[in-house]
Amino acid sequence: MIRLEHLGIAVKNLEESNELFEKILGRPLYKVEEVESEHVKTAFFKIGESKIELLEATAPESAIARYVEKRGEGIHHVAFEVEDIYAEMERLKAEGFRLLNEEPKRGADNKLVCFVHPKSANGVLLELCQEIKE
Amino acid sequence: MIRLEHLGIAVKNLEESNELFEKILGRPLYKVEEVESEHVKTAFFKIGESKIELLEATAPESAIARYVEKRGEGIHHVAFEVEDIYAEMERLKAEGFRLLNEEPKRGADNKLVCFVHPKSANGVLLELCQEIKE
Repeated sequence: MIRLEHLGIAVKNLEESNELFEKILGRPLYKVEEVESEHVKTAFFKIGESKIELLEATAPESAIARYVEKRGEGIHHVAFEVEDIYAEMERLKAEGFRLLNEEPKRGADNKLVCFVHPKSANGVLLELCQEIKE
Repeated sequence: MIRLEHLGIAVKNLEESNELFEKILGRPLYKVEEVESEHVKTAFFKIGESKIELLEATAPESAIARYVEKRGEGIHHVAFEVEDIYAEMERLKAEGFRLLNEEPKRGADNKLVCFVHPKSANGVLLELCQEIKE
């Protein structure tokens, strides 16, 4: 794990939350991106070496829609950048952590990602992510 | 806001969670600290320019005890480092955010801190923090 890459925050209305986080962080967002496979629209803010990712569901089957319905808006996950996502997935699996995907999948912001089940990580939904170099 | 200073995670048993996060992050904690005024024991892990802070309640009236009882273990707050906590508190108040303390108070890790109510920040409990220089 190299750094805290981003913090994912589930929101109901991306436009309203974008304005809110522009005020909180005192800077504009730098990117909006839709991830169709995950049924989310996302917005990114840079802060130091990390990012804040706001996520709004675009369909009721989205994990974000289910999260907001169950727990309300709030911090949804924390993502750590890793050097070698395959090696980290192996390492965590061997340590007894439950991975939510067996193979890395393509996430927002040009990343290969893998999630770790919050039940195995103190109620925290962890994301591993590695930049895709093309 | 300069950087994501730390992510606070509420846990039931600090010793067990310390072991868990040593495995997740692949490194040992560097500090354990009790904050009597907040009724918490904390442990810190460094990751890049940020930290992970685990928090266990030491008394039932602790905000962490109430959080764990209501929502279970998980991400409790996100803290941003600021250059001038008084100025940031004024700025956020003027923008309509609800501060949880009117004056900065002394937090863990040699910091002056102020919390922003999650109701005014998309369900996210925000902490502003500034290193105390002595």
